[in-house]
Amino acid sequence: MSEILPSYLAGSWRSGTGAGAPVHDAVTGELVTRVSTDGLDLGAAVAHAREVGGPALRELGFTGRAELVKAAAAAVAERKQELYDLSARSGCTRADAKVDVDGGFGTAMVFAALGRKGLPTGNVIVEDEEVPLGRAGSFVGRHLLTPRRGLALQINAFNFPVWGMLEKLAPALIAGVPTIVKPATQTAYVAEHAVRIILEAGVLPEGVLQLVSGSVPGVFDVLGGQDLIGFTGSAATAAKLRSDPAVTHRSVRFNAEADSLNASVLGPDATAGTPEFDLFVGALVTEMTVKAGQKCTAIRRAFVPKDRLDEVSDAVSSRLAEIVVGAPGAEGVTMGALVGLDQRDDVRAQVEKLRAEADLVFGDPAKVDVVGADDGRGAFLSPILLRATDRSATAPHRVEAFGPVSTLLPYDGVADLVGQVARGDGSLAGSVVSNDPDFVRDAVVGMAPLHGRILVLDRDDAGESTGHGTPMPQLVHGGPGRAGGGEEEGGLRAVRHHLQRTAVQGGPGLAEALAR
Amino acid sequence: MSEILPSYLAGSWRSGTGAGAPVHDAVTGELVTRVSTDGLDLGAAVAHAREVGGPALRELGFTGRAELVKAAAAAVAERKQELYDLSARSGCTRADAKVDVDGGFGTAMVFAALGRKGLPTGNVIVEDEEVPLGRAGSFVGRHLLTPRRGLALQINAFNFPVWGMLEKLAPALIAGVPTIVKPATQTAYVAEHAVRIILEAGVLPEGVLQLVSGSVPGVFDVLGGQDLIGFTGSAATAAKLRSDPAVTHRSVRFNAEADSLNASVLGPDATAGTPEFDLFVGALVTEMTVKAGQKCTAIRRAFVPKDRLDEVSDAVSSRLAEIVVGAPGAEGVTMGALVGLDQRDDVRAQVEKLRAEADLVFGDPAKVDVVGADDGRGAFLSPILLRATDRSATAPHRVEAFGPVSTLLPYDGVADLVGQVARGDGSLAGSVVSNDPDFVRDAVVGMAPLHGRILVLDRDDAGESTGHGTPMPQLVHGGPGRAGGGEEEGGLRAVRHHLQRTAVQGGPGLAEALAR
Repeated sequence: MSEILPSYLAGSWRSGTGAGAPVHDAVTGELVTRVSTDGLDLGAAVAHAREVGGPALRELGFTGRAELVKAAAAAVAERKQELYDLSARSGCTRADAKVDVDGGFGTAMVFAALGRKGLPTGNVIVEDEEVPLGRAGSFVGRHLLTPRRGLALQINAFNFPVWGMLEKLAPALIAGVPTIVKPATQTAYVAEHAVRIILEAGVLPEGVLQLVSGSVPGVFDVLGGQDLIGFTGSAATAAKLRSDPAVTHRSVRFNAEADSLNASVLGPDATAGTPEFDLFVGALVTEMTVKAGQKCTAIRRAFVPKDRLDEVSDAVSSRLAEIVVGAPGAEGVTMGALVGLDQRDDVRAQVEKLRAEADLVFGDPAKVDVVGADDGRGAFLSPILLRATDRSATAPHRVEAFGPVSTLLPYDGVADLVGQVARGDGSLAGSVVSNDPDFVRDAVVGMAPLHGRILVLDRDDAGESTGHGTPMPQLVHGGPGRAGGGEEEGGLRAVRHHLQRTAVQGGPGLAEALAR
Repeated sequence: MSEILPSYLAGSWRSGTGAGAPVHDAVTGELVTRVSTDGLDLGAAVAHAREVGGPALRELGFTGRAELVKAAAAAVAERKQELYDLSARSGCTRADAKVDVDGGFGTAMVFAALGRKGLPTGNVIVEDEEVPLGRAGSFVGRHLLTPRRGLALQINAFNFPVWGMLEKLAPALIAGVPTIVKPATQTAYVAEHAVRIILEAGVLPEGVLQLVSGSVPGVFDVLGGQDLIGFTGSAATAAKLRSDPAVTHRSVRFNAEADSLNASVLGPDATAGTPEFDLFVGALVTEMTVKAGQKCTAIRRAFVPKDRLDEVSDAVSSRLAEIVVGAPGAEGVTMGALVGLDQRDDVRAQVEKLRAEADLVFGDPAKVDVVGADDGRGAFLSPILLRATDRSATAPHRVEAFGPVSTLLPYDGVADLVGQVARGDGSLAGSVVSNDPDFVRDAVVGMAPLHGRILVLDRDDAGESTGHGTPMPQLVHGGPGRAGGGEEEGGLRAVRHHLQRTAVQGGPGLAEALAR
């Protein structure tokens, strides 16, 4: 597997030339593969998607395409063990891998079910009610949604190679738009295998799903107003891609979902001993350690009533002390490795910036006890809890350490809380842990304009709660400002992002006649 | 009125310094005013909107704000004559001015009515149905819409200084988002007067509406993820603005509505003598001559069955021969001036490009008979009809002459038609003029992914039809690709563009409790 990782383009698997970029095992440091697209004809892949994939999809109609998605998801589910095993090389425990793999096919299955139940058999969705545009009723308006004639290029983050692909792929396919997947280099071999599983199942028409294992030089140059780029990753990369003339000049749709400084809030009512206190502490530890904290939705800022910092610090620290870091699968290990040494270096550098304005409460960025692996070779890092006592601190609202790192922050009343949350400039996910309905209302309504999703966690819903960090296919995922300003998922909304809305004006009944 | 045109910023009228940019009368060439924002503190205006305007609006709730919009629209309606008179200086006939002025306050009134009837009294909209997220029913999800905490900066085109302002202002205010208006230089004095009328009516809280009569240096630098830029104008300017770090790095929402090469289609059934033939010819002449063709929705490409070019050329030419060009208000004048001499030069240059692949059928770009004005001083231009006989011609699908200029193009069957329409890379508005339901369906469904709006015009709906070029507040206005990829209007959708959608997760009934 140390050859160049293949791409699937225009109907066949092909490998780029040259030395390629090396991808190392997160645990052992061994070379896993190399990625390169040198010498590959990516323009032909774009044309193939438009000319072969698009027409094949449009033949099927919405419900027929939802069936395809169901079959693709089932194919991944069938061979999930292969993906778990491969994911371990990227530092994932079994539990981490399930978030990605089961989360991925589960999400696709939800979209398939929504599409089968909620969409028509053809290619035209008639939206809303007819709007009369004249008094006699001879002239009306209505909106149609139809598949765009382009493709979806998905540019994914390293942390969820399977989920990230499937949560974008499912709505695009249901919409009738073929997809080119460009995974992140660090975990491209996991995405490649997931694509291979789907293609080997033979459930998708040719041209509907292609894979670029590596960079995409020149592809943006041939995208236009019927295409969509779905990006997940850093704000800096989002900005760079969004500056491309494809987006700025040719109005390629660009949806960004970027890491953000997500907040969790402990309510004033949730004193030590209440179920909510324990839920807050438990959720924080979970978000810090699942995927070793490499989640765009992870809690980076944990807000606590200002007189409660000590007790929360102690409670979180004692829970973190139970975490066992080490090789996925090794005895007792509950947190795996970061995706690579570069990533670990980056997290360490960000922690140093945070420490300029926050104290280290738990963990040593330079050192961690590791089970079943060599700390010198694998990308291991201790969970790190920081604490800012000064409410004017800036770094916790700006600096993101994309690993098992969170900062406790004090707040003084709900107005101060909302103001501080706003300093993060927009987030994907927030949570309010409280059993006080008035506080919940003030906090959630105050925080809502800054968030794509907010979880209210309390003793009554905790048993079924899906957690702070878990996007749900039925609910929007995305957020304003720093979080990228985009919107993914959200049930059938996700399908509509790939459709063109067109107002049609004419006689009564026109829209239904067009949809027949 | 040859002083610097005032701006309304942070609670008072202020004038920029320096020489300013001169604005000339479109008909006489006289200096009307000068625009400059030199020396004005625009950053303070942004802060004023956020700190004074936003909170004042949010005090009122959705329905209260809809009442404000109604009052503002009524104020403009009350003093419409002043705006007609001023508009004449920009080359508008009375009919042209009504499209802008009456269209403007009429649009705002429709939004006000939709808001009063369709939105809650508070600041939280609960969307869709509750989604169960667990089997026991203790954990559910739902979406809220709440006002963003930023402002709307509207950057408008010269052709509709009143409508362009009001169609953007009404939804923003109803949403609870204060607005800064930046009109185009050429007709800034019309927009300034409309803003003055609204402010003098005293119906809006302070900080809700501000006006920048001139450029906006530095303003983008202080915009962020809670703000929205609504742009109408050329694709080139849209691209420039969209490349700003405000948009690319800080996820300021950017909605573009750009001129496009809109198509009208004559159906194969609509032979000479049918009502549809006459409707097609009449609509084309209307779109060429209203506002002297300076409409982003005007018909630039008129598609005709390939064997029907001659009869359509003749019919359109004979109708164009009846058009009287001259000073607005002068005896018999049915078409006014372009907005200025620069604009006329630009249109002439574009016509030359079109003539490389199309023949001149009617009009002389260099010469026109003018009534009631001096052709040497005013920006007058003859209606110009071109005709491309070669179906491989490129210029008609790419070159836009933003004036009274259209090109007749032949098509050969519906597949060829759709392919040719697609060569325009996305349009705001299209029309299909036919009484054949099968042709209508194939043409409209084929053209839909490329359009924001399509009018089906026939003998039955013509009496009440609002026409090819008229955006309706109830229906979306915008289009993919070249048309900017944006969406305005569309009823309450326009309000939602200013709201943040947030998924909330918690116990059943949570969303309703939050909205109380």
